[in-house]
Amino acid sequence: MKFALGIEYDGSHFFGWQRQSHAASVQQTLEAVLSKIADQNIQVNCAGRTDTGVHATGQVVSFEIDGERPLKAWTMGANTQLPNSVCVRWAQQVDSDFHARFSATARRYRYIIANTHARPGILASGLTWCRKPLDVEAMNQACQYFPGEQNFASFQAASCQSKTSFRYIEHLSVERYGDYVVIDIKANAFLHHMVRNIAGTLMEVGRGRKPVEWVKDLILAKDRTQAPATASPKGLYLVDVDYPQSYELPKLPIGPIFLPAE
Amino acid sequence: MKFALGIEYDGSHFFGWQRQSHAASVQQTLEAVLSKIADQNIQVNCAGRTDTGVHATGQVVSFEIDGERPLKAWTMGANTQLPNSVCVRWAQQVDSDFHARFSATARRYRYIIANTHARPGILASGLTWCRKPLDVEAMNQACQYFPGEQNFASFQAASCQSKTSFRYIEHLSVERYGDYVVIDIKANAFLHHMVRNIAGTLMEVGRGRKPVEWVKDLILAKDRTQAPATASPKGLYLVDVDYPQSYELPKLPIGPIFLPAE
Repeated sequence: MKFALGIEYDGSHFFGWQRQSHAASVQQTLEAVLSKIADQNIQVNCAGRTDTGVHATGQVVSFEIDGERPLKAWTMGANTQLPNSVCVRWAQQVDSDFHARFSATARRYRYIIANTHARPGILASGLTWCRKPLDVEAMNQACQYFPGEQNFASFQAASCQSKTSFRYIEHLSVERYGDYVVIDIKANAFLHHMVRNIAGTLMEVGRGRKPVEWVKDLILAKDRTQAPATASPKGLYLVDVDYPQSYELPKLPIGPIFLPAE
Repeated sequence: MKFALGIEYDGSHFFGWQRQSHAASVQQTLEAVLSKIADQNIQVNCAGRTDTGVHATGQVVSFEIDGERPLKAWTMGANTQLPNSVCVRWAQQVDSDFHARFSATARRYRYIIANTHARPGILASGLTWCRKPLDVEAMNQACQYFPGEQNFASFQAASCQSKTSFRYIEHLSVERYGDYVVIDIKANAFLHHMVRNIAGTLMEVGRGRKPVEWVKDLILAKDRTQAPATASPKGLYLVDVDYPQSYELPKLPIGPIFLPAE
């Protein structure tokens, strides 16, 4: 029997998603609890392997078990055993051809900046802080250059193992909610550090350090060394993953809980 | 020279406000940094000694130093040295008769409940979780019994060292902001655990376990054993402290950052 789960976690409590030999990962924490519930060794696949410090409200995992279990075992059952910083938001049985990573058609991230005079003491590990008032209109103008299929080599980490630097960005926008400035991005898939490198780029424009047109040249340069430093993981949230409708997976408010739903 | 500071902190990182011999407190963390900046031993007084796990966006402290320091030393200077979970929001020079605790005329708290089906994985230590949909209207009806000067012995922890159980509640209300239910309370001062005991009481009404009128009887009973369990510290924030206007202390948005300002 195969299941898919929707997972939320505070990434500041983990050394990233992926199982590691010497540090606590979300994957390992989740697999330990699911294995206990299923009374068998469970390995999960995920939609997006988030880095250390990166959060998720809409991570999706899939796994197969021998035998049956009611859906409640994976939601209420798992949530009583998982640490406070991880929870299962929903569970659903899926066809055997479903794979959390390979069936996904798009991923959506929100990058959240606290645009405040003093750095935040509350939610400090869940926000990127920028003291200088950001020019959201200029940031949005810079967003226009990103959508479509392009070579995003300028935003690709040196460590990225992808064979191609081409990705298809469906949507990129910036919105202000009070003290928050939120970058919202959706693509078929992302290169390593791509969202944080785009966030760092947009923040340069928002701070007035670079003109809007500089971003166009930066994309065309296909050269990581011309782009600014990778922005902090603190403000990054994997908020949603798209799958073909035939799988009928639930759609919950994308979160995080402290922002308006959409 | 005497100063007052506005302090924000994530209480989940500390064993309460008050200096302790064997555990990290906010007071000790703050005093260590201020003492380093002032190059002398600084002891601070605070407006409200919060318990373990309780947060603040509007804590106020006062302290005296020999000699002078620019205000920036206490804001930007201290914030570079304080851990991420504590920050100084503002600093102001004050008259020598100012005392963060004794000059305060009122304290205001917000108690924040995540009223969601699954427990939150994000902000898990900054919210109290309640799965059952809360009846905010009934909770507000129960609020009517609290304002004014009364004997609040039913909401006083056994550990409370106050000589009297009388306090003056200026304001108590409940409001829903999306998935959050927020209890907002202001009083001249609070008994130990008083806000959390009132929150626990209002949640009983919100869950439909007790009728609105039960709250009236509970106050009149002046008996802690009749009230429900103390609610979790996770959702509690000290958001504001009032002082006589003559001190001209700054008023910032009360926060926490993830809620509308007022």
